[in-house]
Amino acid sequence: MSPRQFDVTDLVSRAAAGETRYIARLITLVESESEQLRELSALLAPRTGRAHVIGLTGSPGVGKSTTTSALVTEFRKRGKTVGVLAVDPSSPFSGGALLGDRIRMQEHSMDPGVFIRSMASRGHLGGLSWATPHAIRVLDAAGFDVILAETVGVGQSEIEVSQLADTSLVLLAPGMGDGIQAAKAGILEIGDIFCINKADRDGAEATRRELRNGLSMTARADSWKPPIEMTIATEGTGIDKIADHIADHKDHLDATGMLQARREERASREIQAIAVAEIMRGFDVSGGQLLAGLSDRVASGRLDPFTAADELRKTTDSM
Amino acid sequence: MSPRQFDVTDLVSRAAAGETRYIARLITLVESESEQLRELSALLAPRTGRAHVIGLTGSPGVGKSTTTSALVTEFRKRGKTVGVLAVDPSSPFSGGALLGDRIRMQEHSMDPGVFIRSMASRGHLGGLSWATPHAIRVLDAAGFDVILAETVGVGQSEIEVSQLADTSLVLLAPGMGDGIQAAKAGILEIGDIFCINKADRDGAEATRRELRNGLSMTARADSWKPPIEMTIATEGTGIDKIADHIADHKDHLDATGMLQARREERASREIQAIAVAEIMRGFDVSGGQLLAGLSDRVASGRLDPFTAADELRKTTDSM
Repeated sequence: MSPRQFDVTDLVSRAAAGETRYIARLITLVESESEQLRELSALLAPRTGRAHVIGLTGSPGVGKSTTTSALVTEFRKRGKTVGVLAVDPSSPFSGGALLGDRIRMQEHSMDPGVFIRSMASRGHLGGLSWATPHAIRVLDAAGFDVILAETVGVGQSEIEVSQLADTSLVLLAPGMGDGIQAAKAGILEIGDIFCINKADRDGAEATRRELRNGLSMTARADSWKPPIEMTIATEGTGIDKIADHIADHKDHLDATGMLQARREERASREIQAIAVAEIMRGFDVSGGQLLAGLSDRVASGRLDPFTAADELRKTTDSM
Repeated sequence: MSPRQFDVTDLVSRAAAGETRYIARLITLVESESEQLRELSALLAPRTGRAHVIGLTGSPGVGKSTTTSALVTEFRKRGKTVGVLAVDPSSPFSGGALLGDRIRMQEHSMDPGVFIRSMASRGHLGGLSWATPHAIRVLDAAGFDVILAETVGVGQSEIEVSQLADTSLVLLAPGMGDGIQAAKAGILEIGDIFCINKADRDGAEATRRELRNGLSMTARADSWKPPIEMTIATEGTGIDKIADHIADHKDHLDATGMLQARREERASREIQAIAVAEIMRGFDVSGGQLLAGLSDRVASGRLDPFTAADELRKTTDSM
């Protein structure tokens, strides 16, 4: 796949020592779906588990990148190093937004305690790049204390980013009908901390009320009560509170054993996704000819798809 | 799964004879993920392949249900029977829109040549219900000449509906920034016919120009040149033209062999999806204990997810 073969062991050592260009190279390797990903993954595993992974999501226009940038500043004040992954679930056409993010992030570009990377989504399974968990592991192994995964929240991807994170931060803004949006997309269930940004705008109180009502009717799987915080990210207002809530939530996860539970869930999904991807690759390789024949018979009504699926599974079993 | 066991052979015979309540019952059976789905699927297969399946998609507010209703009227004028599936990829919260659709569709409720059904999405794989292809087969076996599958177009689901259809109709409306939307969502590639609805509004010409530009830069896998038509669905204006384009596209598919090719692609995706679903069910059943152990080891960094996925696959092979 990859045109170049790297000495992955060497790359990982250098990235783990915090050398920025090697971190960047590993993420590129992850993104390129290189055959070396397996090897890399085995090398990364023992070096992971230390970082606090924070997912940050919200509709376009709520101020995600400004908030991310302000949070980075706040974490740096607290002596923490930060890795940022900006995952864009839309197509390459939306390069404009990414460019904007990059400009806003530039204030951190000279800080060696901050690493920022944009990742394009490949549109697998509804939004987020499947490479994202691997990229998070790279940053984890590189020793960042905090990893911020920011995603342009459109439907499905909001749920997905929360599944990758230890702590999910959901951003809203007044007057965007976000209360209803939240209920729709199911983010009431997934947000650990809610942030009403642009709180100096009209309707901030109404948004808070709507959100509080929504949350009061939402059942959670754990005992955490998600706080709602008002912020004005452009001025940094309220960002320290958000950082406090993030720290509190981390303590709560540790104290209740939820951190390990969440990470096991995440691992389970990832293992299954990889297994399915490998099996589907098997369909193409060993079953390519067979699949074509089965598709022809199903398309012309000579066979039903369930029996065809049985036939297909038989071949991959014997691989 | 299903609390009631039906005599599926009897249901299929009655549905194939055009008895509406049995068609409805079969779709319910399909939606309930009944264990009888396999049996049903085998019975339906030899009765399918006759209907022309049309996908209709577009952003909220472009006038999808009005256009669908107007198209139904037009097809009836041309002596064709029509089955309509309204697939809603959003959550149960959006019942309002469906209700609106139903009211708009009521003019056809007394016509035995028309069958209308709303289907909720289960959110599998990014939007469309996986039951939809089975529901399409039910309507096909029931003898409808045309099947209209309408979906609220939000991102991924637009692509999915096009994969289910022989002919994909994409709706836009002026002044909604739809040209850019179209480029983003990749619908330029998937639309066989483009319909600018609400064409009496300001900006219709601009939308057409933008769309034409976009299409001129878009590579298609076939030789079809997608027409752009202006409509005012509320008045029925332009709907006959749309019906003409649909008929032309069907002729083109037949003449070029693309109809069979598209249906084989569709069958291939469906066979693979069923096979993967069965395999994943196997993970839960036979591999449940194993998967929990693997997840624990991956979450704590003692194992990488690729090796874990290998372990998981080994168990399902021996099922």
